Amino acid sequence: MTAPSSKRLTRTRAEMERAGIDALIVGPSADLRYLTGYDAPLLERPTMLVLPVGGEPVLVVPELERPRAEDSGAGDVVRIVTWNETDDPYARVRTAVGADHATLAVGERMWATFLLALQDVYPAAVFSRASRILNALRIRKDATELDALRSAAAAADGVATGLAGERVSGRTEREVARWISDALITRGCEQVGFAIVASGPNSASPHHEPGDRVIERGDALVCDFGGTIDGYSSDITRTFCVGEPPDGFADAYAVLAKAQDAAVSAVAPGVPAEDVDAAARKVIDAAGYGDAFIHRTGHGIGLDVHEEPYIVAGNAEPLAAGMTFSVEPGIYLRDRYGMRLEDIVAVTDDGVERLNAAPRNPVVLT
Amino acid sequence: MTAPSSKRLTRTRAEMERAGIDALIVGPSADLRYLTGYDAPLLERPTMLVLPVGGEPVLVVPELERPRAEDSGAGDVVRIVTWNETDDPYARVRTAVGADHATLAVGERMWATFLLALQDVYPAAVFSRASRILNALRIRKDATELDALRSAAAAADGVATGLAGERVSGRTEREVARWISDALITRGCEQVGFAIVASGPNSASPHHEPGDRVIERGDALVCDFGGTIDGYSSDITRTFCVGEPPDGFADAYAVLAKAQDAAVSAVAPGVPAEDVDAAARKVIDAAGYGDAFIHRTGHGIGLDVHEEPYIVAGNAEPLAAGMTFSVEPGIYLRDRYGMRLEDIVAVTDDGVERLNAAPRNPVVLT
Repeated sequence: MTAPSSKRLTRTRAEMERAGIDALIVGPSADLRYLTGYDAPLLERPTMLVLPVGGEPVLVVPELERPRAEDSGAGDVVRIVTWNETDDPYARVRTAVGADHATLAVGERMWATFLLALQDVYPAAVFSRASRILNALRIRKDATELDALRSAAAAADGVATGLAGERVSGRTEREVARWISDALITRGCEQVGFAIVASGPNSASPHHEPGDRVIERGDALVCDFGGTIDGYSSDITRTFCVGEPPDGFADAYAVLAKAQDAAVSAVAPGVPAEDVDAAARKVIDAAGYGDAFIHRTGHGIGLDVHEEPYIVAGNAEPLAAGMTFSVEPGIYLRDRYGMRLEDIVAVTDDGVERLNAAPRNPVVLT
Repeated sequence: MTAPSSKRLTRTRAEMERAGIDALIVGPSADLRYLTGYDAPLLERPTMLVLPVGGEPVLVVPELERPRAEDSGAGDVVRIVTWNETDDPYARVRTAVGADHATLAVGERMWATFLLALQDVYPAAVFSRASRILNALRIRKDATELDALRSAAAAADGVATGLAGERVSGRTEREVARWISDALITRGCEQVGFAIVASGPNSASPHHEPGDRVIERGDALVCDFGGTIDGYSSDITRTFCVGEPPDGFADAYAVLAKAQDAAVSAVAPGVPAEDVDAAARKVIDAAGYGDAFIHRTGHGIGLDVHEEPYIVAGNAEPLAAGMTFSVEPGIYLRDRYGMRLEDIVAVTDDGVERLNAAPRNPVVLT
């Protein structure tokens, strides 16, 4: 692996200075990978990048993970310092932070136990979220990041298209989820992020956990999955019919597809994120399915599957070139069926690029 | 799924009363699953179980995950309350907690962003770790939990034994890791927890991430993997030789196996956890490899892969029947090779039970 350019650290410090943050502390997370290239295991032994606004950046790692940290190339941009099993890792952090700083920003996904430990070490400090610094950088993808997202989307497209050739009736949701996971790896993903397979009435549950239900003819089938390429995620949803579609399905799906098109068409630099949500909601509301669209329209995607910008009412942040997010309206009819249509899009200098190209019409499976 | 008995909530409250905790708040985690049976997705929308020491327990979930929460059976032991995309979830939490309590215990693995939000809602509260309450329950497994751990260990044993029949030379670490992952699922695991495959000099890195290195004759090969059954984890390590073992390997391995035996033999109720670590370390130190054993001897295992009790110097907690943990000494010779031998054991009323049964001698692979 190679570390990202140290420009990211330089830009982070400029943002820290502006926000009045004395030191930033992040654990194993997309933040850490973004800044140093190190994809650290998330375990009970603390790993922490300490970035003082003025001093030397230090990566504190458990001694047994030193080879992994070194192999990541992180040593090119930060100094690696280790601690042994019976050492106090927070003493290393304290040395790296320097004086008793007043404002410390911590990674959003750091475990509470580590934050509580830091609050014990710095009882007088004010703690805030590192995301207020890092989102300004991470939210706009550079050319390399966009390429990785395109590759990840292409892998997901291939799996969605391949799925259309599979017989699914008579198989359980879990079996189909396993087929999807295997296919993502075969298509070059390093890791499977998730694979939701929701059949029949389960398709009305947006975050259904695939189970032992046997898929049968007459089911709607929602498949929502993604994997990573060079650390960047894909996330696609396609809704299939198994044999004849259930009553009313075709009409509702036409509304859904129109809503997704309207939302994608609304994407352009300068447009508030919530306007994209409103564009989808307007179509679904007008068709009388408003109460059945029970979630926001989308989420940003990058090194995290869900990140900023969130495409939701109340988020007035203007879209800008390089932002990447899902557009995924859904209609969920409890105890009957549900449907969702999801693609990843990128904001371009003058509009929008769809990263996914798998067919959007509801394919009939056997 | 079925919810666990509400006795766990009752016992938790008794521990809370003893510790002076007014309310316990846990997010998606093994803690949540242990208390309610709900295996919640860990995402940016907060899901929180609020357990006031005296009041009604409430599970706050995003509306779109209501079906998943209900399917889990959690509704049998707690009341499920949902919030919509534009609602404030912390208002629901506040209602559930009741008054402005002074002492709140939060799940160790809750994301920092959620803890910071709770600290904003309760600026005068004292926050501590829910583990101080829950570990007292989770650390000793009941008969059902032990059965799940035995099943998970048997699946891992089957994979380790099957691996001995595979040709590995000429394949990459990543390919072998994929074979292991597939085999864990085939043997009944719901999920693969991890699969470390470290070959040649990489085997000297305890937490090596499997990569593109092609395994060749003369390599040592460390395989460390596990998956879950009914949510409970396995974790086994076997070290193989690919063809002729490298120089000095056989002698060092004999020391390692003797150290592991000594540590397992030291396990009994009432023995301090650190004595098990010392038993392994004494053998390895005496043979002159002390500096090459760079990690603790083991970790507890259950709904989390790593949990209490940690088998490490400084942990004087007495072992007790029902505790389950790994015994996994290792010897790591930088730039040459490494080795580790890991089994899961359970403390019984009068000694120890090994949950793993795969051969412990270093099998020669082709």
